[in-house]
Amino acid sequence: MGYDAIDYLPYDFANRRHIGPSPAEMAKMLAVVGVSTLDDLIAQTVPENIRQEEPLDFGKALSERELLHHMRETASQNEVLTSLIGMGYHGTVTPPAIQRNIFENPAWYTAYTPYQPEISQGRLEALLNYQTMVSDLTGLEIANASLLDEATACAEAMTMAQRVAKSKATAFFVDENCHPQNISVMKTRAAPLGIEVIVGDVADLDPDAVFGAIFQYPGTYGHLRDFTDDIARLHDAKAIAVMSADPMALCLLKEPGAMGADIAVGSTQRFGIPLGYGGPHAAYMATRDDYKRAMPGRIVGISIDSHGNKAYRLALQTREQHIRREKATSNVCTAQALLAVMAGFYAVFHGPKGLRAIAQRIHRKTVRLAKGLEAAGFNVEPEAYFDTITVDVGLLQRGVLQAAVREGLNLRAVGKTKIGITLDERARPATIEAVWRAFGLVKADDDLTPEYRLPDGLIRTSDYLQHDVFHMNRAETEMMRYMRRLADRDLALDRAMIPLGSCTMKLNSAAEMMPVSWREFADIHPYVPDDQVRGYHALIGDLNAKLCTITGYDAISMQPNSGAQGEYAGLLAIAGYHKANGQGHRNICLIPVNAHGTNPASAQMVGWKVVPVKCDDNGSIDLDDFRAKAEQHSENLAGTMITYPSTHGVFEGTVKDVCAITHEHGGQVYIDGANMNAMVGLSRPGDLGGDVSHLNLHKTFCIPHGGGGPGMGPIGVKAHLIPHLPGDPVSGDGAVSAAPFGSPSLLPISWAYCLMMGGEGLTQATRVAILNANYIATRLEGAFDVLYRGEKGRVAHECILDVRPFEKTAGVTVEDIAKRLVDAGFHAPTMSWPVAGTLMVEPTESETQAELDRFCDAMLAIREEIRAIETGEMDREANPLKLAPHTMEDLVRDWDRPYSREQGCFPPGAFRVDKYWPPVNRVDNAYGDRHLVCTCPPMEDYAEAAE
Amino acid sequence: MGYDAIDYLPYDFANRRHIGPSPAEMAKMLAVVGVSTLDDLIAQTVPENIRQEEPLDFGKALSERELLHHMRETASQNEVLTSLIGMGYHGTVTPPAIQRNIFENPAWYTAYTPYQPEISQGRLEALLNYQTMVSDLTGLEIANASLLDEATACAEAMTMAQRVAKSKATAFFVDENCHPQNISVMKTRAAPLGIEVIVGDVADLDPDAVFGAIFQYPGTYGHLRDFTDDIARLHDAKAIAVMSADPMALCLLKEPGAMGADIAVGSTQRFGIPLGYGGPHAAYMATRDDYKRAMPGRIVGISIDSHGNKAYRLALQTREQHIRREKATSNVCTAQALLAVMAGFYAVFHGPKGLRAIAQRIHRKTVRLAKGLEAAGFNVEPEAYFDTITVDVGLLQRGVLQAAVREGLNLRAVGKTKIGITLDERARPATIEAVWRAFGLVKADDDLTPEYRLPDGLIRTSDYLQHDVFHMNRAETEMMRYMRRLADRDLALDRAMIPLGSCTMKLNSAAEMMPVSWREFADIHPYVPDDQVRGYHALIGDLNAKLCTITGYDAISMQPNSGAQGEYAGLLAIAGYHKANGQGHRNICLIPVNAHGTNPASAQMVGWKVVPVKCDDNGSIDLDDFRAKAEQHSENLAGTMITYPSTHGVFEGTVKDVCAITHEHGGQVYIDGANMNAMVGLSRPGDLGGDVSHLNLHKTFCIPHGGGGPGMGPIGVKAHLIPHLPGDPVSGDGAVSAAPFGSPSLLPISWAYCLMMGGEGLTQATRVAILNANYIATRLEGAFDVLYRGEKGRVAHECILDVRPFEKTAGVTVEDIAKRLVDAGFHAPTMSWPVAGTLMVEPTESETQAELDRFCDAMLAIREEIRAIETGEMDREANPLKLAPHTMEDLVRDWDRPYSREQGCFPPGAFRVDKYWPPVNRVDNAYGDRHLVCTCPPMEDYAEAAE
Repeated sequence: MGYDAIDYLPYDFANRRHIGPSPAEMAKMLAVVGVSTLDDLIAQTVPENIRQEEPLDFGKALSERELLHHMRETASQNEVLTSLIGMGYHGTVTPPAIQRNIFENPAWYTAYTPYQPEISQGRLEALLNYQTMVSDLTGLEIANASLLDEATACAEAMTMAQRVAKSKATAFFVDENCHPQNISVMKTRAAPLGIEVIVGDVADLDPDAVFGAIFQYPGTYGHLRDFTDDIARLHDAKAIAVMSADPMALCLLKEPGAMGADIAVGSTQRFGIPLGYGGPHAAYMATRDDYKRAMPGRIVGISIDSHGNKAYRLALQTREQHIRREKATSNVCTAQALLAVMAGFYAVFHGPKGLRAIAQRIHRKTVRLAKGLEAAGFNVEPEAYFDTITVDVGLLQRGVLQAAVREGLNLRAVGKTKIGITLDERARPATIEAVWRAFGLVKADDDLTPEYRLPDGLIRTSDYLQHDVFHMNRAETEMMRYMRRLADRDLALDRAMIPLGSCTMKLNSAAEMMPVSWREFADIHPYVPDDQVRGYHALIGDLNAKLCTITGYDAISMQPNSGAQGEYAGLLAIAGYHKANGQGHRNICLIPVNAHGTNPASAQMVGWKVVPVKCDDNGSIDLDDFRAKAEQHSENLAGTMITYPSTHGVFEGTVKDVCAITHEHGGQVYIDGANMNAMVGLSRPGDLGGDVSHLNLHKTFCIPHGGGGPGMGPIGVKAHLIPHLPGDPVSGDGAVSAAPFGSPSLLPISWAYCLMMGGEGLTQATRVAILNANYIATRLEGAFDVLYRGEKGRVAHECILDVRPFEKTAGVTVEDIAKRLVDAGFHAPTMSWPVAGTLMVEPTESETQAELDRFCDAMLAIREEIRAIETGEMDREANPLKLAPHTMEDLVRDWDRPYSREQGCFPPGAFRVDKYWPPVNRVDNAYGDRHLVCTCPPMEDYAEAAE
Repeated sequence: MGYDAIDYLPYDFANRRHIGPSPAEMAKMLAVVGVSTLDDLIAQTVPENIRQEEPLDFGKALSERELLHHMRETASQNEVLTSLIGMGYHGTVTPPAIQRNIFENPAWYTAYTPYQPEISQGRLEALLNYQTMVSDLTGLEIANASLLDEATACAEAMTMAQRVAKSKATAFFVDENCHPQNISVMKTRAAPLGIEVIVGDVADLDPDAVFGAIFQYPGTYGHLRDFTDDIARLHDAKAIAVMSADPMALCLLKEPGAMGADIAVGSTQRFGIPLGYGGPHAAYMATRDDYKRAMPGRIVGISIDSHGNKAYRLALQTREQHIRREKATSNVCTAQALLAVMAGFYAVFHGPKGLRAIAQRIHRKTVRLAKGLEAAGFNVEPEAYFDTITVDVGLLQRGVLQAAVREGLNLRAVGKTKIGITLDERARPATIEAVWRAFGLVKADDDLTPEYRLPDGLIRTSDYLQHDVFHMNRAETEMMRYMRRLADRDLALDRAMIPLGSCTMKLNSAAEMMPVSWREFADIHPYVPDDQVRGYHALIGDLNAKLCTITGYDAISMQPNSGAQGEYAGLLAIAGYHKANGQGHRNICLIPVNAHGTNPASAQMVGWKVVPVKCDDNGSIDLDDFRAKAEQHSENLAGTMITYPSTHGVFEGTVKDVCAITHEHGGQVYIDGANMNAMVGLSRPGDLGGDVSHLNLHKTFCIPHGGGGPGMGPIGVKAHLIPHLPGDPVSGDGAVSAAPFGSPSLLPISWAYCLMMGGEGLTQATRVAILNANYIATRLEGAFDVLYRGEKGRVAHECILDVRPFEKTAGVTVEDIAKRLVDAGFHAPTMSWPVAGTLMVEPTESETQAELDRFCDAMLAIREEIRAIETGEMDREANPLKLAPHTMEDLVRDWDRPYSREQGCFPPGAFRVDKYWPPVNRVDNAYGDRHLVCTCPPMEDYAEAAE
């Protein structure tokens, strides 16, 4: 003892908390990998010619406490006013039990998208509740499991309308009463697809001129209209009717389905999701059963497992980009699962009676507010409304807005002379009185008798939320236990490694997550005056600067709120650049065949034609083919989309050549940032020749996956593309998201990560991510072929295990292995991508050697089981791989298998006492798609209840 | 649909969230119970003559959001400065992962004391880590699982010293360098026991005059002394040496064990536990193996289960009050389990190297601070120190203190002329510079070379925390998963009802819990100036007023930080009253035989003699016997301790008689508030004749049990006892706790509960608690005898099930039933108390009908299993009751039982998919006490690791 430990830094976040392997473990791992130092390994892995010149230097890294202090200071620069701005963003009350048990619970927020249904039954049930809620409220048969935001949902609805409309018109009508950001994003989306957007008064709608139309309900200025006749006219013209509807209003008002609408979209933000300066929130989409296969986004459905028991799963995946690529219904990938789960729980917490009561309270308060203003002589529009009114104040607009701010309120400037006011469930009598004061009134001596100003014909007559789950006992005790039961059915990062290649499931640390709940970040409307968000701007400014340094780009746009959105925004920037240069004809996009499916899906969205480029045996771009195609399309080459390191997990030495060739032929280079976790601090896409990249902040920069969203996909661009970045959704052009900074309440997470890691820590994280991947590759070598290595035999931050031969030798498929890993307590690696029939493993830097070993032990044992089948020791059908995963029910029922219970349920890697049990056996995907059910089943099917 | 729901209040916390049964369920339950209205049931249950006159009226109940807003306003009235006051309270850094995953996780905070070891293995392991940490740091063989605070731990050590000392002296020496609150509480504790407390300079210690001595280490003013010689002298005189030691200092300094100390106590607050204006924090106690049976408080030990596997459990319970009553080692019951778990995890997070580094940083900063002051000419004491220095500033004391406050710092006033400064792990260079400025110095041009001023002879030479658990990989990923695994092994309120009679395991709602984490409540030293805690005072004032209204008392003292402490403080008040009236000789305490064991244990602590009073067949006080004993002891009657409603769950109609008789004979009445959950809003102990009561805020008022603490036991008194309430621990007399308001950071919970329930809601909670108990009693009637009912056949808020007959008819014990309930996913009801061989069931108002039914179904099925044994259908040994609980391992291994796996593992009541599996089979208690091991076993014993 004594004074020996002066150099030990107990608060070193990077090395003590974030990076998994300890120094001692790293030494052991390097020995296994066969190099003497981490520097050597990196030298063998990352080609010299792509290394960045300067190390990252962000000053001294902060400890967790310093970070929280710094974050607190930053937060205090935001001013939290009550925003009655509306525009689809509302104050809401998040039930504390939901906040604590879901939003702040790693069992929920660290989960991955439920592609592996056996270990995702909890969140799948929660999402099914959400879908049922959306379907019920909108009166449409089928709903998806969320979209990114209302504006992009409108845009998705527009393109979906075009897909399903029998009308051959090329224009789309947009109700001028749509929220401005919705109009803006639809315009952006329409332009490259050749869709003409007609914004106008619904009265002027010419159904024959359009393939579809969208109506806002209630309108952005508060108007209510029964669109039944308008929709009938559209249908007569074989056009599609879309309604963008506020789900809270639908608790009182005639629903889109009852008006005949084909598609409904909207935001569920006001169902308990904090404003967060714009997001993340779950947008919804619902449609008629007829159109389900044309719907974008994920859909949870019900199927059965191998024992015929009910099991949830993602349905109709064949629509999606990861399968259909440029033919997908959309490039939507990550959505807003966590927020959809919360919104669904909000409905479970309140039930139909509670929701209706909340909607009534909002409405009655709005009526009272309006009556006070009317009594004072103000002209309040419209005559009938739900929660939004508009008041003409002439020259006094600025004065009233300023007076409101002094009262602690943000109102909306409408035109040059009007004020918009939208109430929400947080509105209290004091709120109404403050608004009155802003208009110069003393407290009105008003009549408190509840009064309604809803048009009689628009009163909802149908029931909703009749399923038992919305009629649960609403005691918090019961709710808390329900949330816990669902959480326990799932396997998330808080229990085990999720070694998903290309998904970078790393630690989402508690210190990073905490500020997201703070009201100074959570309770801010996206369209407040800038002087109320100095903290946000400081944060975004500094994070932008750091990301520029990390990527080698000159500017960052935070607007894209998912990786796919980032790709799309990046390609739009390129397209805008070409157009500005008089090269608007350029429409060819070269994409290697092993690209993420999102790449071609995004290219299609900007109206480009995808030309695939071959890969060589090592998974790298075939440079000859690339050169040939670039030359062939030289005239029309818009750009090249590549991923670096490649989707095969290799640092290609030729990346600079690919960029140079693209540039030679007048194209621009998009470097997909999905694999940025292998680059930070070592190599910069901007230096390699990239013109634009997106960053998955929910991968490399620690935003949790939330069970399938939220995410953030900001893009970095070189200076020449800056003019073509997305503009402000309300005042600018080219917006891709509903809010200026996408989902900014997530940004404290990424910022915290950068601040606590420092430049050195970020670089070390990359290096250890590479070490971890190479450690796995080395340990599994011999048992499995590791496909695609770099020139010196190393993999980057992930590795592909070839399990295809086993199909022939033992009848074992990649799926069998994935499900067998569930028995060992693991989420499977990425299956069949980028190479069908293989597994791609990405451990990230956050996993310890012990966890890596647990995984390797599980994989090696699986290999031995395969060998036993190969030698005939085990049956080709009745073996633990084919019958995986094993459930507790398997243990209880008679055991008629030719291997022991022990062998079946406790393969190497599995915890003993802390064993994770999947709630269902293997899920039958085909059955679920054949018998599609996407709303809650009758309660008697719930197996959980006590007998 | 339409406007029909105006009267539905969606934010009604009381009826929608807190109270379990919905109105519809209540109607069904009333029908089962056989009454038409809840009013009728209450009329049948609660005698008319004890009903309170006025309903509770606390104005409009707040919604969750209103509450949080109100709480935020209150919190903002507290001012958070950096407190360098010391006195055993220090700034600390709670690792965010511990805050989120333990402190804010209901799986940890809603757990009960681990009396049922099979469902408590997770927190037992965490507490064993804590004990190991304490044992290692102090260098003593055995540690307990926490005590309430350092001051009470000192007092417990004093009385323990008297128990074990061979010296027959009656005085106890107290180092004048002890923290003032420690001295104060020891004096309080000593007086009624006839112990003379000698406070003085250690140099003046006369070992022959004392049975023991206590030394503070480091001293409250910073002094360090090697007590080895003093302790040797004490031992020569057959006296006991106690050290109150700072565990952080022990990371660098020679440990108590190495000096020969017999007992060490102290606070682990600075191991990551927020200051909280005084608590809750875990105090520790460690001692030599020889004295373990004399140690108060709970001790976790290691035993084996019925398959011989390692299992944790509470050891040596026979020392404790619930068994030994007035002969117990202490009245300690609830301690600080949750905080001990956190402190243990703090050590796991940092490991020995990290803790040493933290201690070194604190020390080096202190040296730098001192050198700057010395350079400016100040006289800094002492010469050698760890983290605390004292500076004589003469007349400028007040000026320096005020200047410090302007710098955002609280320093300590020592005497009339000195300033005390204590640094902690939060101290930064800016902190030091701010102190210097408070002393009028500009930034010293100081030398930053690390320097040490620890006495050479006091440098620690022994290792600590060598067990593997303190050498885990410290990546947050690994830590988070370890916390999750432990949590999953336990059954807490977040998964199932805990129907523990007399423990009132009700909902601890998220909204109530959230403010506890806020820095305005968490980061405040207990001895800051009053003007910095206006929010706390407002909260405490209002809560006091509400509790007075609820209880019918005239004043409340918040100082007692557990129920047992409350009893003790209440009896002290009575004793003080008698003394002030010249009746100091009164020392007889009448206690019914069915009282909580804590009652006689507390009476013993104030030096009273316990005279038991008989109960009649219905469990009620035998009034004749009572009257006779009161008359017999009339001269010396100090008081009567009763519980109301009785511990048998009956509202005794004679309670007013008991009070009147006591008063007639000059005694005072103590009404134990353990069953207050059956009274709030219906009946007030103050109206019944009680002079004093304690309230278990951790029962009736929603503070969670935390797996065995924290708790709060404020007392209410009639006006005549007000002068005898506990005084300020530093400036007053008669303090019972270390901090003026006990554990005030818990009070927002109880306050929130009162505010959100309102008077009506609180009363309804009581009524539904009674309904729930009567529902269970009715449903189980016939299958089990329900002992003790009121005059009209009703039970109060709990009921006793007589299972004694089954021992004869089927060989089935109460323990067999308790363990069988684990299979059904329940924590057992209270076993064998107040009547041996019975089960006492208290459902509380928070449980829904569905959960009550699940419990009743489980109990009825157990009855059928017993019947099968009775009829010989089932074997008397090989049956599911005797072999309960069943584990997953039982399912895996060969099943050689005469009943099916299904029947064994899934009895009625058990969830299917969401089944709770105990990690061990039935624990062998006797084995554990015979082979006592109370520190972590070697790591290879841990069964959880993957194979």
